[in-house]
Amino acid sequence: MSSIGQIVGLKPLNLYLYRLVTQHTSVAKENKNGLKESYERLEYLGDAVLGTIVAEFLFKKYPFKNEGFLTEIRSRMVNRETLNQIAVKIGLNNLVEYNQGNKHGLAFKSIYGDALEALVGAVYLDHGYARCHRFVVKKLLIPHYDLEKIIQVNPNHKSQLIEWAHQQKKEVRFEVEEVKNNKHFKEFVAQVFVDEEPCGRGTGLSKKKAEQSAAEKSLEKLVQK
Amino acid sequence: MSSIGQIVGLKPLNLYLYRLVTQHTSVAKENKNGLKESYERLEYLGDAVLGTIVAEFLFKKYPFKNEGFLTEIRSRMVNRETLNQIAVKIGLNNLVEYNQGNKHGLAFKSIYGDALEALVGAVYLDHGYARCHRFVVKKLLIPHYDLEKIIQVNPNHKSQLIEWAHQQKKEVRFEVEEVKNNKHFKEFVAQVFVDEEPCGRGTGLSKKKAEQSAAEKSLEKLVQK
Repeated sequence: MSSIGQIVGLKPLNLYLYRLVTQHTSVAKENKNGLKESYERLEYLGDAVLGTIVAEFLFKKYPFKNEGFLTEIRSRMVNRETLNQIAVKIGLNNLVEYNQGNKHGLAFKSIYGDALEALVGAVYLDHGYARCHRFVVKKLLIPHYDLEKIIQVNPNHKSQLIEWAHQQKKEVRFEVEEVKNNKHFKEFVAQVFVDEEPCGRGTGLSKKKAEQSAAEKSLEKLVQK
Repeated sequence: MSSIGQIVGLKPLNLYLYRLVTQHTSVAKENKNGLKESYERLEYLGDAVLGTIVAEFLFKKYPFKNEGFLTEIRSRMVNRETLNQIAVKIGLNNLVEYNQGNKHGLAFKSIYGDALEALVGAVYLDHGYARCHRFVVKKLLIPHYDLEKIIQVNPNHKSQLIEWAHQQKKEVRFEVEEVKNNKHFKEFVAQVFVDEEPCGRGTGLSKKKAEQSAAEKSLEKLVQK
């Protein structure tokens, strides 16, 4: 537990919380109430706390940016992959226990990032919001994020796809169909065709979002080939 | 502003924040930095803060429930419709200004709930986390939620649909197709047929989720008829 204390920069008070942080569900024991003593409940809480702290961090850092910008940058900052990388950088991966024999695909991809969220939840419960806020900003956000770089990433999948097609001398066409889901919402379905062959398909609450989603899925397929 | 003070139970210090809470984007003025002075940035922040406070509230209230239960109940508590209703109950709707001539559909459906989230964001910035936490729990969660009732709502759309079909003496069939989206994820697409006619269609990361989504969409269509 002293290593967790070093990672957080605060002396752990309730050791049970930090013990939970290290327990993936694959090794967790069931308690007498039938609940697995793993990090999952703390992850649920920490996900929310981390989201709030990052939301405020960006809110204050960018006083003249609108909520669309803030939401987008936040989601890039707290995505599974990034959190996983940070968890490895701070050494949390060395503390998390899981059943390695049971290592199959997706569920284990985000294990360290999930544990990092759980750690934020544990620090919140153990030390309160203000100290947890300081831990997140000083130990996670400032040292591990290059905001300029995060902002510059081009999330416009449609223009990326068009550019790719241009380079490959292929033709790209989007077909969008409107679907009424219920009284209030319209959903749009976009289909990408590359040289008239169907490729990615995406849905969204606007034509633009459906196209972006279809373009993103197309790029995933095309780049794999 | 005294009415906002009464709603919150705390004296507003930074009046500008509460002024923002009352400004929908349809009436907001642009400031010299090109940003509309509306409640939208505060809504982005308040959404996160409210999510955290509700997350912790449930975490502590249900110490033996798993994160799936907690996540589900939280999402029922902070959905647009519920927040809208609470905003009306506390009288926030009387304070929010928007362009009534421009009242078209979706964007205005959640105006009061959005403003309520913005109010939470404003209280957080004005009074800090601890007081905001007290405001949310005492003025919003305890008086306006019947948790027993929220928990009892049956979210199992598939069994609801099957029950409906049984009553209507109709046959329901689910068809599920697996789609590989990329290297890591499989997506499932479910199609509901009612008396062999295609009805709702849904997607999800598991067969079960796709079926639930397809059943939910089917129910929306069928109940409208």
